[in-house]
Amino acid sequence: MLTRAPLNLLVDFYEFSMAESYFRHRFKAQATFDLFVRNMPPNRSYLLFAGLDEILRYLKNFKFTQEDLVTLERLGFGEEFLTYLGKMRFHGEVWAMPEGTVFFPNEPVLRITGPLIETQIVESFLLNTVNLSTMVATKASRIVTAAAGRGVYDFSLRRTHGMDASLKAARSAYIAGCRGTSNVLASKLYGIPAVGTMAHSYIMSFAKEKEAFRAFFEAFPDRCILLVDTYDTEEGLRNAIKVAREFRAKGHELKGVRLDSGDIVALSRTARRMLDAAGFRKVRILASGDLDEYKIERFLREKAPIDDFGVGTKMGASVDAPSLDVIYKIAEVTDTEGVFVPTMKFSKKKVTLPGRKQVFRVKDKSGSYVRDVIGLEDEGLGEPMLQMVMHAGEVIYAPPSLKELQERAQKNIACLKTSCKRLHGVTDYPVAVSPGLNRMVRRLSLELKKRHKTSPKKP
Amino acid sequence: MLTRAPLNLLVDFYEFSMAESYFRHRFKAQATFDLFVRNMPPNRSYLLFAGLDEILRYLKNFKFTQEDLVTLERLGFGEEFLTYLGKMRFHGEVWAMPEGTVFFPNEPVLRITGPLIETQIVESFLLNTVNLSTMVATKASRIVTAAAGRGVYDFSLRRTHGMDASLKAARSAYIAGCRGTSNVLASKLYGIPAVGTMAHSYIMSFAKEKEAFRAFFEAFPDRCILLVDTYDTEEGLRNAIKVAREFRAKGHELKGVRLDSGDIVALSRTARRMLDAAGFRKVRILASGDLDEYKIERFLREKAPIDDFGVGTKMGASVDAPSLDVIYKIAEVTDTEGVFVPTMKFSKKKVTLPGRKQVFRVKDKSGSYVRDVIGLEDEGLGEPMLQMVMHAGEVIYAPPSLKELQERAQKNIACLKTSCKRLHGVTDYPVAVSPGLNRMVRRLSLELKKRHKTSPKKP
Repeated sequence: MLTRAPLNLLVDFYEFSMAESYFRHRFKAQATFDLFVRNMPPNRSYLLFAGLDEILRYLKNFKFTQEDLVTLERLGFGEEFLTYLGKMRFHGEVWAMPEGTVFFPNEPVLRITGPLIETQIVESFLLNTVNLSTMVATKASRIVTAAAGRGVYDFSLRRTHGMDASLKAARSAYIAGCRGTSNVLASKLYGIPAVGTMAHSYIMSFAKEKEAFRAFFEAFPDRCILLVDTYDTEEGLRNAIKVAREFRAKGHELKGVRLDSGDIVALSRTARRMLDAAGFRKVRILASGDLDEYKIERFLREKAPIDDFGVGTKMGASVDAPSLDVIYKIAEVTDTEGVFVPTMKFSKKKVTLPGRKQVFRVKDKSGSYVRDVIGLEDEGLGEPMLQMVMHAGEVIYAPPSLKELQERAQKNIACLKTSCKRLHGVTDYPVAVSPGLNRMVRRLSLELKKRHKTSPKKP
Repeated sequence: MLTRAPLNLLVDFYEFSMAESYFRHRFKAQATFDLFVRNMPPNRSYLLFAGLDEILRYLKNFKFTQEDLVTLERLGFGEEFLTYLGKMRFHGEVWAMPEGTVFFPNEPVLRITGPLIETQIVESFLLNTVNLSTMVATKASRIVTAAAGRGVYDFSLRRTHGMDASLKAARSAYIAGCRGTSNVLASKLYGIPAVGTMAHSYIMSFAKEKEAFRAFFEAFPDRCILLVDTYDTEEGLRNAIKVAREFRAKGHELKGVRLDSGDIVALSRTARRMLDAAGFRKVRILASGDLDEYKIERFLREKAPIDDFGVGTKMGASVDAPSLDVIYKIAEVTDTEGVFVPTMKFSKKKVTLPGRKQVFRVKDKSGSYVRDVIGLEDEGLGEPMLQMVMHAGEVIYAPPSLKELQERAQKNIACLKTSCKRLHGVTDYPVAVSPGLNRMVRRLSLELKKRHKTSPKKP
C-alpha cells in the first residue's frame, strides 16, 4: 500500500531548492521559525493544540535514505548537496506548548531554532501535522462541549481524508474528550477503546430484523447495541425489546439501541418511553448520522434523552473549518558573524512578529485564563506556555499518556471563559504584544523600511 | 512514524462484529454492495471518479497478520472466527467505472460481489478511499476548468489532512488536469513533475532581497522563479529584473516571478508591464495564495495576465466541500439456498436501489453526454459504465498510466454539457431509473412493507 513508502520525501520541492541554495551561500546560518495560526476559523474562539508527539518523532528520526537521494538527484540537485543531505540529521531545539493546551491566533505554538537548512526542510511536515491534529482536536473539543457530559465517540474513519488522517483524527478526538473510536488500528496504536454497533446492511442480510438482532446478540451478549431504524424505527424498537427479553432470560442485558436517521429527537423520546415501559431503563440510546456540535446542542436543548453520540464525517474532516491558517515563519537568522538578528515580513496584511518569543498566560486567582501576552523570551509576563521539548535534536521530555493529554485538555477548557466556549460567533480572547516585542517591531520596521524602500503597516 | 504500522486494521470495529456474526450464522452468504454518492456537494453538477487503483491494490493484498489477530483477540473476538480471518483473502468480483470518469448521484461507481464477510469488512477502506480521491479530483477539475488552459499546480502538501491525503490529493489533482505538484514523494511515486519556487523565509534569511535572488538564480539557473512580494512587490520586481539581466548576460533566462499576496490582479498587470518593458516577455507570472476556482475565475474575468496558478489548501482539502456523501449499500444477498435475492433499505429519506445494477450512458452523435440510466445489469440501455476490473480476487485489467487517466478525464469533461461545468449553482444532469429496476423496486417495496410492517417512500 501507498503508505508503506518511506515518508522522508514528503517535503515540498521548494524546501530542497532553498536548502541547496543555503548549502552554497548560508551554510552556517542558524534560524528560528515560529509555527502559529494567523486567523481563526469561523465560530472558533480557541484552538486546542495536538500533533506534537508526531512532530518530535519525525524530527528524531529525520534522515534521507540512499533511495531518496537518487530521487533528488533525478530532480536536478547537486552531488555535494546530496552528500551533505545523506548525512544530515535534525540538530535543533524545539519549544512547544504541550498537547492539550488551548492557544490563540498569532501565538507561536511551536518554536524551532537550529541550522537554517534543517529548520527549513522540516516545514512541510510540521505544518501538515499541526494543521490536521489541531484542527480535529479543536472541532472535537467543541462537540464534547456540546454533548455536556454525554458520551462522544469517533466514527469518522470512512470520511477522513485518507488513512493517516483517520488515525490522527481518532487520537486528536480522544485528547479532546471523546471516549472511544470505531477505528480498530487507532484503538490498537493509541490504546483508545474500540466501539461500534452494526450497519443497516447487517440487518438487511437476514430475512427478518428479529433474526438479525438475535444473531448479533448471541455473538456479543455483553456489548450488544442494536440498530433499530433499518425499516421502521418503532417496529425496530419492538423487535429489539422482544429480543432483549429473550436474552435477559439467559442473563444478558441489551446495552443500547442506535438511531441513525429520521427525527432523532422524537425517535429518542419514543425509544426511551418504550424501553422504560418494557423494563429496560438502563439500555442506552446512541444517536448517529451526520452529527456535529450544532445538532447535538439542538438535541439537548430539546431535551432528547440521548446518552451517547457517534460522530463521524463532520468531526473527522472538521467540515465547517477543514483547514487552519497555520503558518511557519522565520523570526530570526544569524548574520555573517553568526549573531542572531531578528527579522520580520511586512508585505501588506501579512506582518509577522520578529525575535525569539514566548507566550505568557495570565490567570486569575481561580486559575481562569485572563489574557495572553506574546513577548520576548525573557520578559516573564505570566506563565510561560512554550516549554523546551527537544534540545540538540534529542527529545528531552517524557511524552505524557493519551489519558493525561485528555485530562490536560479538559482542565484547559475548564479554565476558559464561558464566552470563549460558545459554539456560535467568536469571542476575542485578549492576546497582547509585550512592550519589549513592540519596541523590537518598531525598530525593525524602520530599519527594514530603509533597507527595502517600503512602508510596512503596523502589526 | 505512524504510517509505518501495518494498515490491515484500518477497519471500523463494527465490520468485525458483523463479520463474526456472519461467520456463525451466514457463513456461506454472498452479497453485492454498491458504492455511490447519495447527495452532491454544493455547486457541483458532476463528480470525477478517482481512487480505484488504490482500492484494487488493497483488495489484492487484503489479509490479516498474526499480530492483527492478537489485537482482535484482545478486543474479544472468538478463536474460530480469528482462525478463519487469518486465512481469509478477498475472493470477490469488482465492477467499477474507470478512474477519470464523470458520474452523478445515486450511480454505483463501484459494485462488488463476493462472500458477505469479505465484502462487508472492506467497507471502511473503500469508502475512505473513494471519498478522498474523488472529492479532490472533482475539486481540482473545477479549478482546472476555471484556469481555462493556464497551468495549475498542486501546492497542497502543508494543508492536506495528513500524509496519505497529500499523496492522494497530488494524484487526484494530476488526473483532473494539474500539471505538477510540490510534493516530492508524490512526484516520485506517480511520476508527476515536481515544481516549486521559494518561501518568504528564504528572502528574509539574506540581508537584501537582491542577494537572495542572486543566490537562488545561481543555484538553479534554468528553472528560477523568484518570489517578489516579501517586502514591496514593485521593488521586488525591480530587483528581479536587475538580477535577471545579470544572468541573461551569462546565458540564463529567468523563468518566472511569483505573486503570493496583495491585489493579485493589479500586481500581475504591473508585473507584466514591467517585465515586458524590460525585455522579459517570456517570464511567466505565477500566482498563489489561498486560490480556488472562484478566485481564478475572477482573475481571468478581470483579464489578469497570469500564466500559472499554484493552488494549495482549497484544492487539497476541498475546502468548500470537504467530504462526499459516499455510501456503501447492500443490494442483494443470497438466501439459505444460495440464490441471490435483491434487497433495499427504505427508512424515511434513505431509500437504496436493489439488485445487480449497471449505469448506462446515453450520448448524442457528437459524443456529448445526454443522460444516464441506472438499470439492471442486462438491460442494455446505453454505454455500460461499470466494467469488470477484478474477478475471483484477481485484478483483470491493466492499470492505465496516470497520463492516460488525465486524458480520459479531459475527454469526459469535454463531453459534459457546459451547464454542468458552471462553477456556481447546480445543473441536474438527467439520471433515470430503468423500467426493469423500477419494477423491481415496486415489487420489493410491497414485499418488504408486508414483512416489516411499514410503508416505504417511493425512491
